[in-house]
Amino acid sequence: MKRTHPGLLRSIVATNVRRYRQARGLSQQDFAHEIEMDRTYYGGVERGERNVSIDNIERIATGLGISPHLLLLGPE
Amino acid sequence: MKRTHPGLLRSIVATNVRRYRQARGLSQQDFAHEIEMDRTYYGGVERGERNVSIDNIERIATGLGISPHLLLLGPE
Repeated sequence: MKRTHPGLLRSIVATNVRRYRQARGLSQQDFAHEIEMDRTYYGGVERGERNVSIDNIERIATGLGISPHLLLLGPE
Repeated sequence: MKRTHPGLLRSIVATNVRRYRQARGLSQQDFAHEIEMDRTYYGGVERGERNVSIDNIERIATGLGISPHLLLLGPE
C-alpha cells in the first residue's frame, strides 16, 4: 500500500513540538541544548524536514515533560 | 538531560504494533508485504530492535487503519 499523504505525520510532529516548546518559554537553541540534541537537527524537526526516530521522539517528549503520543496527535 | 529509560518507547511501539497487527489476523510477513516494508526490518520493529522513524510509524499506522498516536500509547 502506498501512503496517500507521505510525510503528513512529520508536519504534525513538527507543529506539536514547536507548540509545546514555545509553551515552555524556551528558544529552539536552549531546548536543544537541554535535551542534548544538535540544534541544527532539532530545527529541522520543527520544520518537518527530519524523519525523526522514535528514540528522538522519546527524548523530545521527556524534555517537554509530556507523553510521547501527544506529539503525534493531529487536528481531526 | 539524559533519558531515564532509554528505548522504553521502542518497546511500547513494538507491543502496540504487534497487537494491532494480530487483531487484523495478519502474519508479520503478510502485513509487511501489504505495507511494502522489508519483512526482516518489520520483524525488528515488533521486537523493539529498530529505531523506527516517523515516516515508517505513519506507514504502519496507515496499514493498520489506525491513528499513528495510538502506536505510542503505553500502559500508564
